[in-house]
Amino acid sequence: MQISMLIYPHFTPLDLFGPLQIWSQLPGASIELVAKELKPIATDTAARLLPTHTYETASRHPDILFAPGGTYGTYAISEDQATLDYLNDRAQNASWITSVCTGALIMGAAGLLKGYRATTHWAAMDQLKEYGAEAVNERWVIDRNRASGGGVTAGIDFGLAMAAEIAGEEVARMLQLAVEYNPAPPFNSGHPDVAKPETVDAVLAGFAAASAPPATND
Amino acid sequence: MQISMLIYPHFTPLDLFGPLQIWSQLPGASIELVAKELKPIATDTAARLLPTHTYETASRHPDILFAPGGTYGTYAISEDQATLDYLNDRAQNASWITSVCTGALIMGAAGLLKGYRATTHWAAMDQLKEYGAEAVNERWVIDRNRASGGGVTAGIDFGLAMAAEIAGEEVARMLQLAVEYNPAPPFNSGHPDVAKPETVDAVLAGFAAASAPPATND
Repeated sequence: MQISMLIYPHFTPLDLFGPLQIWSQLPGASIELVAKELKPIATDTAARLLPTHTYETASRHPDILFAPGGTYGTYAISEDQATLDYLNDRAQNASWITSVCTGALIMGAAGLLKGYRATTHWAAMDQLKEYGAEAVNERWVIDRNRASGGGVTAGIDFGLAMAAEIAGEEVARMLQLAVEYNPAPPFNSGHPDVAKPETVDAVLAGFAAASAPPATND
Repeated sequence: MQISMLIYPHFTPLDLFGPLQIWSQLPGASIELVAKELKPIATDTAARLLPTHTYETASRHPDILFAPGGTYGTYAISEDQATLDYLNDRAQNASWITSVCTGALIMGAAGLLKGYRATTHWAAMDQLKEYGAEAVNERWVIDRNRASGGGVTAGIDFGLAMAAEIAGEEVARMLQLAVEYNPAPPFNSGHPDVAKPETVDAVLAGFAAASAPPATND
């Protein structure tokens, strides 16, 4: 089971680490972190990650091809031709083409979601439609061999749902127990459908302000 | 707001990235990833992270001191005197002493949880008691200035609860919405209280087998 996970400057690491932590325990899984270059990748947090492979050395026939999202890094990478070429090339042979959060916009930019049901972060649903996807307000969506999770933390639900598709429900139940995924959110504020309107407005204003990277970021 | 987060060989990155992703958006937050040496830190996944500070250069007066857990890396670091010295030194001045998952065992080994209510991964509750803590079966626990989250994904609930303590409920609600924390686990298997007994047995057998690092890990 070869899993190729894209990483790129200023991506959102929690988008990645939900499925990465869960899939690392799949029987026979081999996971690579694929970037344009083998240099440290900044995230939208203080963490920097080391890629394991480049577009040239990454698996030619991944079982799972995956892209995480990012608050602002997504837009630059969605216009990077080498990245779109890599995704298009591997998508020809991948068993699954997958994303979490605005990673769906990268897959969309690569032309890989046209005519597919897919989801993304709640604030990016309109952008997903522009790529020809049918944007669906669900925690995760599987349509043929495309699978996508919603915003950030949805990667955990998505990662477990994919584990069940690949290794069966009993394995997925074990992985859920291993990562103690028995959520108890302190508030009921995780989606615009349930959050207070003023909370939604404040978060949207914050996203608008964060659409360009801070000058201090490398 | 200075936040010092310990990282060490073979830790569990999802323990870290729940609170790290959420706290990164706290107003005025400055986060450092602190390790014994400034070299890449392997995790229990394919990801390797770069520390930003060492025990020598890390903040002297952190507002939050934090430790993540690990399937097997926790035991070695809990016996590393330089690490225990670092935690003890900074704990003198820290406003909050915190952990997720078996990170509590590291804080316990440093003598920082004696007489405090705390939690950890469900499979490590007995070990936590050995450090003189009152082990509590809750998603997260706050006792005076000690705060701890349960296993792995509990870091998200813990991170949001801490955000509310520090910045108020409205900010925490915004952060919950930003990371779309509206969980929908595909199964009801996230804790031994709800999982099937055969699932619990299988996971415990897996943990026992994973108590030593695989020979191929660096």
